Amino acid sequence: MIPTIGVFARSPDRGRGLARDMAVRWALAECGQDYRIDPLAFADLNAPEHKARQPFGQIPTYEDDGLVLFESGAIVLHVAQAHPGLLPTDAAARARAVAWMFAAVSTLEPVIVERETALLLEGDCNWTAARLPLLDARIMRRLDDLAAWLGPRDWLECDFTAGDLMMICVLRRLASSGLVAAVPVLADYVARGEARPGFVTAFAAQRALFAG
Amino acid sequence: MIPTIGVFARSPDRGRGLARDMAVRWALAECGQDYRIDPLAFADLNAPEHKARQPFGQIPTYEDDGLVLFESGAIVLHVAQAHPGLLPTDAAARARAVAWMFAAVSTLEPVIVERETALLLEGDCNWTAARLPLLDARIMRRLDDLAAWLGPRDWLECDFTAGDLMMICVLRRLASSGLVAAVPVLADYVARGEARPGFVTAFAAQRALFAG
Repeated sequence: MIPTIGVFARSPDRGRGLARDMAVRWALAECGQDYRIDPLAFADLNAPEHKARQPFGQIPTYEDDGLVLFESGAIVLHVAQAHPGLLPTDAAARARAVAWMFAAVSTLEPVIVERETALLLEGDCNWTAARLPLLDARIMRRLDDLAAWLGPRDWLECDFTAGDLMMICVLRRLASSGLVAAVPVLADYVARGEARPGFVTAFAAQRALFAG
Repeated sequence: MIPTIGVFARSPDRGRGLARDMAVRWALAECGQDYRIDPLAFADLNAPEHKARQPFGQIPTYEDDGLVLFESGAIVLHVAQAHPGLLPTDAAARARAVAWMFAAVSTLEPVIVERETALLLEGDCNWTAARLPLLDARIMRRLDDLAAWLGPRDWLECDFTAGDLMMICVLRRLASSGLVAAVPVLADYVARGEARPGFVTAFAAQRALFAG
């Protein structure tokens, strides 16, 4: 079976690969797995048909042979468990990779999304200029901790895993902020991820939809 | 081997079971697995010894037979994979349960933590009173979607899983806000979780530490 992933028909990031389907596309590309896409208009996200697949009206969704999944982390983990290449075979090393997946979406991403929310939904509020330094400081504390862990390593553990894939997707959301660029260890880490053939393939695929 | 979990020596929630070790304690209790605790003072969280186990200076940590894990979601998933009772045996149903675990920590929890952050770290800022209704509205949109999914079900899928465990732990963080109480379907869902013997055991264990 070829899986189908639900994506934005018109991504608000204009093809920069910041929407959460990017992680799923990248995971599938790393595994050499083809997929179809189901482009969704914003107006369709809250329709009952979509919420039956994605209870919170988000993207991506993933459908394969009767299985319907949501949450990019869960989809990437499912793909990584079904194909070789994104998780170590050793059980302990595999658990460590999964820990980094959770760290990406529940320790790094929330403080990054809080900054995005401030700019997008509270950009015209008179407190946002004063709050931004607080938000940046919260992000930088996480980035400094991550950089301290990473140090001279290429990847978070021995080899590239689904943990790196999720973490790099989350860090890429900060591209326009300059915050990752201020931490050379992390800027290099993101660049290593973006240089992988799987990333290049996945990035081109999402960009083609935007250009089309 | 008996695993050891790193917890706050003095939880800031004063024993209400809102710290993230509660999910790990609950998962272990559901599985009938004993554990030891390693109580950590706040001053020790940023020590190099702790950051070698938890790169972001948080709790909980989990150590078992040489494996060191962090992130409550990853630890609960590891426990659920190692013991029967918290994940379905069917692969597709198991993937669905994992999707709810990720939804708990990356779709529900961030908007809830944003509200906590506003009260704890920005409580004395002159914008917080004006921001709170915005934060509550973001939370209520998620809660309404979750309640719509849950409907008359007891649990998010057929049987209780690690997905319910993580979701109920996240919803419990809202207890003092009154927001979950305003959605009877979710208040009942949380109460069902809190009535499970595994929850009762785990709650008493963390409370004993606070009282001691």
